[in-house]
Order: sequence, then structure tokens, then C-alpha cells
Amino acid sequence: MLSEPMTQSTTDVLAYLSRNRHRFLAELQRFIRFASVSAQAHHAGDVANCAAWLADHLRAIGLRDVELVPTRRHPIVRASWRQAPRKSTVLIYGHYDVQPPEPLKEWNSPPFEPIVRGEHLYGRGASDDKGQMFVHIKAIESYLKTTGELPVNVICVFEGEEEIGSPNMRPFLKDQSRALVAGCAVVSDMQIPASDHPAITYALRGALSVELEVQGPQSDLHSGLFGGAIRNPLQLLCAIIARLHDAEGKICTPGFYDRVRQWDAKERAYMRQVGPSDNQLLHSAGATAAWGEHGYTLYERTTIRPALTVTGIVGGYQGPGAKAAIPSTALAKLDFRLVPDQDPHEIDFQFREHVMRRTPSGIRARVRTLMAEKPALIDRSHPALNAAVRAYDRAFGAQTVFLRSGGTIPVINMIQEMLGIPSVLMGFGLPDDRIHGPNERFHLPNFFKGIETSLRFLAEVGALRDTARVPATITDSRLE
Amino acid sequence: MLSEPMTQSTTDVLAYLSRNRHRFLAELQRFIRFASVSAQAHHAGDVANCAAWLADHLRAIGLRDVELVPTRRHPIVRASWRQAPRKSTVLIYGHYDVQPPEPLKEWNSPPFEPIVRGEHLYGRGASDDKGQMFVHIKAIESYLKTTGELPVNVICVFEGEEEIGSPNMRPFLKDQSRALVAGCAVVSDMQIPASDHPAITYALRGALSVELEVQGPQSDLHSGLFGGAIRNPLQLLCAIIARLHDAEGKICTPGFYDRVRQWDAKERAYMRQVGPSDNQLLHSAGATAAWGEHGYTLYERTTIRPALTVTGIVGGYQGPGAKAAIPSTALAKLDFRLVPDQDPHEIDFQFREHVMRRTPSGIRARVRTLMAEKPALIDRSHPALNAAVRAYDRAFGAQTVFLRSGGTIPVINMIQEMLGIPSVLMGFGLPDDRIHGPNERFHLPNFFKGIETSLRFLAEVGALRDTARVPATITDSRLE
Repeated sequence: MLSEPMTQSTTDVLAYLSRNRHRFLAELQRFIRFASVSAQAHHAGDVANCAAWLADHLRAIGLRDVELVPTRRHPIVRASWRQAPRKSTVLIYGHYDVQPPEPLKEWNSPPFEPIVRGEHLYGRGASDDKGQMFVHIKAIESYLKTTGELPVNVICVFEGEEEIGSPNMRPFLKDQSRALVAGCAVVSDMQIPASDHPAITYALRGALSVELEVQGPQSDLHSGLFGGAIRNPLQLLCAIIARLHDAEGKICTPGFYDRVRQWDAKERAYMRQVGPSDNQLLHSAGATAAWGEHGYTLYERTTIRPALTVTGIVGGYQGPGAKAAIPSTALAKLDFRLVPDQDPHEIDFQFREHVMRRTPSGIRARVRTLMAEKPALIDRSHPALNAAVRAYDRAFGAQTVFLRSGGTIPVINMIQEMLGIPSVLMGFGLPDDRIHGPNERFHLPNFFKGIETSLRFLAEVGALRDTARVPATITDSRLE
Repeated sequence: MLSEPMTQSTTDVLAYLSRNRHRFLAELQRFIRFASVSAQAHHAGDVANCAAWLADHLRAIGLRDVELVPTRRHPIVRASWRQAPRKSTVLIYGHYDVQPPEPLKEWNSPPFEPIVRGEHLYGRGASDDKGQMFVHIKAIESYLKTTGELPVNVICVFEGEEEIGSPNMRPFLKDQSRALVAGCAVVSDMQIPASDHPAITYALRGALSVELEVQGPQSDLHSGLFGGAIRNPLQLLCAIIARLHDAEGKICTPGFYDRVRQWDAKERAYMRQVGPSDNQLLHSAGATAAWGEHGYTLYERTTIRPALTVTGIVGGYQGPGAKAAIPSTALAKLDFRLVPDQDPHEIDFQFREHVMRRTPSGIRARVRTLMAEKPALIDRSHPALNAAVRAYDRAFGAQTVFLRSGGTIPVINMIQEMLGIPSVLMGFGLPDDRIHGPNERFHLPNFFKGIETSLRFLAEVGALRDTARVPATITDSRLE
């Protein structure tokens, strides 16, 4: 511990948290009762009601400038507290929308009737992201209700479209960039390895998601009458996909690795020290054999190396039994994960060129880009990240490590590029929270430790000297 | 014309046909009104009613021993006329079940309300196979009602399960082989190239239909968190499929071509003379570029050469947009077409061996065999085929040719192997009948020319000398 910025008031704030645990849990349950499923049109009213309730709640705990910002679909809830002109500002991002609850029959209790069983609160959104964002709301309340002020300025941005790809977040950040000036952002929408193993994510892979459609004959053809004489687009698609990787798992698109950053021995040694072993990663995958690029651990293959996954093929007959037809079209869904300094648009272009070169006459190939997001990398030495480490260490009573993730959170890169600030990826979920699946749950000890982490983090950031010179962006910095 | 066995009575029989054209058409419409969809359980009653109506109809025209033979699902209708002990016997095979009519909204008139528009009768089963089998029923009626007898003995076998793969035909033929002794069979369940281009099919490819399932991790994995480190069964499936063909379209399973019969220059010259040109075949496929084995015409590639078509892949996410998951399993449907002297069970074994050799550790591959049917080949010089040529030539006023088909009709091989007799593949359908699709239709001039062809065929077979020595089987004969 380099510093201990919490004072007598800290004790009071923690005491407030302690006294109000039951009410905090009940309020979280109320929050989860809204079926705020952003993807399903018939839940649009539930999303709107959830946003209105959230705004009222933020007003009730003492936040100012609470506003429902309309978008083309679901509103963004914005609020702030800016009464400390000499302090830094923390932008708190979260999302109040949830994944569809289907398949309903696999839930042990109704998804929107949250219930506590053992150490867990069960319900859709309990972990992703209502429970995790509520951590910060309750930390703010604990401060404001105890001391009448916050140790730092805060801006809350809670969106209602994260589960449908945040289509309106980029325009919102652009429009409001002046109102969103901050020293750092904090996002709690991820997991830590275990309840006694806190971790901060400092790297995310980018993503390029495309559909490749191959069209052959005008209509399906009888495979008896024409098999052997007409090119089958489904077979061609398989051939194209098979040749996207070489035998050891490297991606073959020309130029694909040109911009992949090489990491030095020090960084890779740190990764080996704190990251999961190959066996741990295989175990969590439920797989028995590793695959991929030689010369890298599995943790490295999933974080500092790019990947390409064929996530779906739709081609020909899908039902039971057989149908004797050469399909006229076939479609594959491909998911690239990219690392610094790859650019998703450049990779997209390379891929299109590659496909066109491999398309024979008589066949039309089309590529549709569904998503193109850059990788994100946050400087581990940034003061905000160190403030988060100190807060975690105290609240969880365990040593916090820095981990990379192979996943993609588009808003992190948006915040980095459009607002010029780093994000502190401060997760409170656990790997077995079953987010997106039936019986989603949130580990309640993490909920309460999370509130303590959040309020300690706000205090730590508030106590940073030279906040005006907190580095604004680390987009291009290299970790050494 | 080598013979003209029809005498004065021929004129009377043709006159009867001519007088009763409207009634014959009305009866065919009645036959089509039964929604005898064998694949759909809710149509089981319609199938049964159709069989009962058919049996009554066969009794009414003068056939004997009419019987509904029960099977595990839909009955076989059997009837015969055997009053000519010195004459040969013709086994007439047809099927009264039909394909499902879906998609209903694409029909211009309801599928089970047959209607005449122009020269066509529209309705499900109009061509496949109610219209074509009804040709023979009306030929028999014309004889029996005019002369009180037939020029040949006949046995009718009309099944109700052809569209679901004839699961009970093999046991039926085995049980009844003594009651089904005949000199030849006639099957009208196929197409001729055009109304002025009659043709007899003398070769069919065999078929091996398999499903290949590849299983990797226990459940779907996040492609961001695990992509690059875990083998993707869908990608592996693509690699296996891509390597089933070489660059020019030859099949790579070891031993696959070992038993493929080579044809001499005379046979190939006949095929070039009477068969479709490459351009004609491409035109009917609606394709612009040829594909496949060098050194063979497209007609040869689809008839005397084997083929392998991937007819479907079910793997990963199938819906709109993207889903970031490595699928835990992937499945492909494969359709082999086989030629003499390939054995489907041997090819099945070779394929399984090939797949097992290509399955890496950590992956389970399973092959399920859905169908294994031998190719069929009928001696063009068989007297019954020559009788059919004479009948076609007269009824259609055009010269009949012998064609090979790349398709598979399992019952032809069953009849050949289990009853030891050749089948005369006497089609009256046309390539644009849209069988299995919406707006199926039957060309009415072909219906009436078909009845004339059938009654001339029965007369021709009845007039054959030495019928007792009509060759019983040509399974292993070679066409020279």
C-alpha cells in the first residue's frame, strides 16, 4: 500500500454500507425485475421503464443532472456529480439492458423474479451487467449519504443497447464529448478469475466479424443428376475455409501478421507468472487437446496473437435425414480476433482480396462486414490502474494481478479513441456466473466487496496528486 | 419396326382410349385429390384412403386378386391378371404416395385440387408418380374393357412409401418373391428429355448417403476468450471435406476408383451420339461453368463416373448477424453417387477409415449411414427393352434412344437382385414437371401418348417368342 487516502469518513462510509446490505440487495432485485431485453421489440416498454426507474434511483441517491438521453431505440441514462473542481473525474460506464432469457424452460426460477439461493442472486442481468454496475451506484450513495460529497467527480453513462452491439454509443460519445471530459473511465462488465483472485483486464482483442456467401447455380440441383459436373458452392466454401489456416494454425491471408506486435521477454514472463497455465485454460474450455500457433502458450494464443474462428456455416439441407441436392448458395460466418497494431479495416480488405483471388469462374462470392472493432490496450502503469489495484487489494484481501482478455468490448476502444481516456476494467463477475445463459447469477460476496472496491477506488483517484496531468490517452503507448 | 403385334383388336383398344380421354383425366384428378403425403403423420388417413380408392379402382377395371398388403406404415396395393398361361408376365411398379406440398404459398392453385391449365394438369403427384402410374392402369382398362383379356399377364405393385425411401419394399419383395415371378418389370417414374424425344433409361447410379459429425469441446466456447487455442470442429470438418476432392474434382478416398468400370470406345461413342452435350447439360443446370474430372464429357461425369456432393452442413450459429462462439459440434451430409462395379458398403468402409485417419486427438468423429444402394444397369439388348422402343416409337412418332441417368431409384436394383428381372424404365415425365416443387404438373399429351405406349408395350411383350427364355437377370452383364 503506497497510500491510504480513506480517513475517518471512510469508516463511516463502510459502516453505512454494512448497515444497508439488505436494502442494497432488495434494490438490486427491484432493478433486475425489469425485463429490459434490448433485442426483443416486445420488451421495449420494459427497457423504457427500467431506464426511468434507474434515473429516479440516481436522483434519489443524490446524483445531479440526471437525464434520459433518447437514441434511435433505447435511451442512455446519464448523471453526474461535479462539486469538486480540484479533483479528477471518473466516467462510470455500465448497461442496464440484458440478454434474452430464452430458453425459459431451462431456468430453475423465472429469469425476472430474482431470488437468493446460497451465496448467489439468480436472475437475468444479475451479473451482466445490472449487478456489476449497481456496485458503483451503491458506492456513490454510501459516500453521498454519509459525507454529503464524493472524493472525486463522477459522470455516469448507463446504456440500454450493449447487448445489441451499442449501435448508438459512438454518436453519443461524439455528441457529448465535451460533457464527458474525465481522467479515466471505469467499466465493470467482466469477470475476475475467482472471488479470492481479483484482476484488472488491461488488454482486449479487436474483432472483425464477416459473412462470406458463395453462390453457384441459379437454384438447387439434383445431386444425382448433376453431381460430378457442376461446382458445388458449399464444397468451395469448405475449401476456402480450410485454406485460411496452415497446418499449425497460422492464418494464411497474405499480410495478416504484418502489423502484429511482438512482445518482449519481460512482458511474456509477466504473462506466464500471473496468467492461466495451458492446463487451466484447457480445463475451463472443457477440451482435452490444445491447438494453434507453435511457440506460444494458450494464454498467449488467446491474447497477444490473433485468431480466426468459423462460427457458423449455413449451407444446403439442414433437416433430419438426407436431401439429394447441390445447394445453390452457402454462407459462412467468420470471427477474427485482432491484436495491436492490426487494423480491422485493413484485415477486412486483405480478406476480401484473398477470397476474390480464390473464387473460380461460374461462382460469385460476397463478403459482408458485420463488425470491425480495434483492439484496446491500457497502460498498466497508469495511476488510475494502480489506484484500482490498491482498492481491490484492500476490499478483497488478496493481491490483484493484471490480465489480458481475448474478448472484445467495443466501448473500451470508443472511450479510448473518442474521449482520449483509459478505462479501468474492474470486473466483479465470476467465470461461472452463466452470463447469456439460463440461471445467470451474481456472487453476493463479490457484490458487497465490489461496493467496497468501488468506494475505495473513488477515494484513491480523488487522492491522486497532479490529477490534471493524469495521462489522457495511452492509445499508442507500448507496455515495456 | 420389326413386328406389329397389334391386330384388329388394337384398333378397338385405341378407339376405347380415344373415346374415354375425358373420363381418364377426371379419374386421374380424383386420384390426385387424396393428399397421400407419406412423410407427414397427419396425412396417414389420406394415404390409407388413397390406397383403398386405388384398390377399388383396380377391381373396377377388371384386375383380380386385388389386395392391400399392410406394412409397418402405409399399405402396398397389389393386383394381377394371369389368364394367359403361355404368355410372359409384366410386373408394373408405381407409387401412390407423394412429396409434401410445402411451401404452400408458392402454389398458384391448391396442390390437392388438380386443375388443367393449357396442356398441363397441375397438382401434387400429377407427374410423380400418380399420373405416370395411372398410364398403365388406363392401358389395362382399355384392353380389358375392349377385348376381355390382356395380351400378357400383369402383376401390379403400387407402394405408398416411395417418397420416404421405400423402407418396406425390400421385405415385401422377399416375402412375395414367388408371387411376383415375371419376365420383366416396367417402372414409369422418370423423365424423357422432351415430348418429341422418348428415351429409355438403362443405367442408374448407386447412392451412399452419410452424415459425418465432428465433436470437439463439451460445449460452445466464446470465440474471443478461446479462439486460437482450441480446435474448432467446424473448421476441421471443412478441412476434411476440402480434402475429399483433388484439384480437378477426383475423389481422394484411397481405393475409391478401384472398381469403377471403364467403358470402351463404342459405348462412349453411343453416349456422345444420343446424350446431352456439355452445353445442354449446363443449360439445364442453370450453371455457366463446368467442373469435374478431366477426360470425360459432363454427361459421362454424371453417369459413368462416380461423384461426391456435400449436400448440407449444420454447424455453429445459423441465425442473422453474428454469434461469437466456437461450436462444440459440426455435421455434414454427404451424397456419394456410385457406378458399376462399386459397392456402397465397401465405399462406406473406405470413407470411415479415411475419416478416422484424419481425426486428430481431442476430436471425436462419427459417421452415420443413411442409405446405401447399388448402381443398376440394364442390358440394352434385352427383348423387353426392344419391345418398349417399338411401343414408344409408334406412340410418340419419334425415335427412342437409350440414356443413362445419374440418379438412383433403389427399387430398380431391388427388383433386379431379389426377383432376378430387368426393369424397363419407361418415363412419361418431362424435365419441367417441377416434381417435388410447387406447381408440379403433368404434360397431358404425354399422359395420353403414355397410355398408348403402355398398351403397345404390353402387346409387344405378349407377342415375344420364347418368353420362357427371356433372360431373367442382367445384373452382371456388360454392355459392349
